[in-house]
Amino acid sequence: MLFTKMHGLGNAYVIFNQLDDEFENQEFHQLAKNISDVNIGIGSDGIILICSSKVADFQIRIFNKDGSEAKNCGNGMRCVAKFLFDHMYVTSPRFTIETLGGVGSVDVEVDHKQMVKYVTVDMGAPKLLKGMIPMIGDPFIATINEPHSFDEVTYNLTCVSMGNPHAIMFVDDVKQFPLENIGPTIERSVLFPERVNVGIVCVKNRQEIDYRVWERGSGMTMACGTGACAAVVAATLNEFIDKNKPVTVHLPGGDLTVRWDESGTVWKRGEATYICHGEWEMDTK
Amino acid sequence: MLFTKMHGLGNAYVIFNQLDDEFENQEFHQLAKNISDVNIGIGSDGIILICSSKVADFQIRIFNKDGSEAKNCGNGMRCVAKFLFDHMYVTSPRFTIETLGGVGSVDVEVDHKQMVKYVTVDMGAPKLLKGMIPMIGDPFIATINEPHSFDEVTYNLTCVSMGNPHAIMFVDDVKQFPLENIGPTIERSVLFPERVNVGIVCVKNRQEIDYRVWERGSGMTMACGTGACAAVVAATLNEFIDKNKPVTVHLPGGDLTVRWDESGTVWKRGEATYICHGEWEMDTK
Repeated sequence: MLFTKMHGLGNAYVIFNQLDDEFENQEFHQLAKNISDVNIGIGSDGIILICSSKVADFQIRIFNKDGSEAKNCGNGMRCVAKFLFDHMYVTSPRFTIETLGGVGSVDVEVDHKQMVKYVTVDMGAPKLLKGMIPMIGDPFIATINEPHSFDEVTYNLTCVSMGNPHAIMFVDDVKQFPLENIGPTIERSVLFPERVNVGIVCVKNRQEIDYRVWERGSGMTMACGTGACAAVVAATLNEFIDKNKPVTVHLPGGDLTVRWDESGTVWKRGEATYICHGEWEMDTK
Repeated sequence: MLFTKMHGLGNAYVIFNQLDDEFENQEFHQLAKNISDVNIGIGSDGIILICSSKVADFQIRIFNKDGSEAKNCGNGMRCVAKFLFDHMYVTSPRFTIETLGGVGSVDVEVDHKQMVKYVTVDMGAPKLLKGMIPMIGDPFIATINEPHSFDEVTYNLTCVSMGNPHAIMFVDDVKQFPLENIGPTIERSVLFPERVNVGIVCVKNRQEIDYRVWERGSGMTMACGTGACAAVVAATLNEFIDKNKPVTVHLPGGDLTVRWDESGTVWKRGEATYICHGEWEMDTK
């Protein structure tokens, strides 16, 4: 079976184009586990199947390396958008992709070779009310720079859901801050009944922030696309940066540009990169 | 650049055939790091370059995922032998491969499709004297079922070097034994100036043993080819099994068959499997 392995900020997916040639009767949960295993498979964070859609230009199904099906993945969406445009399955630079989480729109920008360099993905509107994060407390108010104590130290939290919950703190230096220590404590605090991603932000100026994240269930990761969006929303709510202006977010895995527009939608722009393409031997374990 | 990813017992290598088409001016240490990184590269335990040799039928260079060059790797040798025979670079089922550790000979066995199923690799002769392991004590005697105390518990060790040092213990059940706890203690004991791989063996019968290993510098691993050989040598020294008879070694990653022959050479036979083949995008990070 032909595949293409791509990454967005080090988040790597094995992509199977099912538009011309479909898998027959595959059990995709097990397939994702087998292919993602670096020892006996190709090795990735998951697989993405590109299929035809009745409601959008294309449909994708994303299966994580543990076999679970994902609603959406911004880094994976960028990879798919580049793949589709570069391979001329679409000629318009704006098109729509259906995921389990709904239909999203993508914009591509090409380099001098007419290959896609940047992809902008519609990340939807943030949810701010405690009831929507979800977070314990009055469900109809937002959490903006609100003091909370963990391990006898007080941290000021701003909480944002981008489909998944984020607690953001502003710090002087994201590298020096002991996120590895406090991250797991906040993640599992009783404040957050569904746990929470813990992000730290250093505002460099009104166009640029540093961001590091402790991801719920995963620990320290190279990049978290929804977290980068939550960081920009949180910094805007705290008036460190301005709405509707693009902000560069520096993550350990690379840069993203995020814009929270007047209509309330968050746009995330970043690169996607080919790693390899080839044929997978399906009879390998 | 064209590649083939293969594995032997879950030990995965990206193989580059340099017989027809050589890399130009590559810095292989960095290349191995980039390609082995599952996030931005193909993902593997290392890379293997197949080159021509002046002293053997072929030469291979093995670079680990940390960029270091390896002397030899039994699992990698099996993969290379299958690749060369399946692709008809050689027609004799026995041929020689030069590594940094010397010239080794391999034997291949094919299935009904004339594709290589099993490869037997010459692993050389074991070294048994304490001075050769190396191990503290009289340098001219072997360590066979010798009692030593670690954390106030006595374990009987049999020590074998297969190019790297192994301390082997015989237990009733390899799954129940707390190797994760005692492994690191023995590994770093003052007894072993260059540290040691710690293996546990359960003898099922005179043709079959179970084996698990705590690898020096790596911890619990799925398979260790030199360790499987050391286990068979140790079991022979303790008269649990017989010299010159093939013994099946069950490892967590799969099975190997090991034979310590009358001449003193240890032969290791196992499978090698294709995962995928394709083209790597060299301009990716």
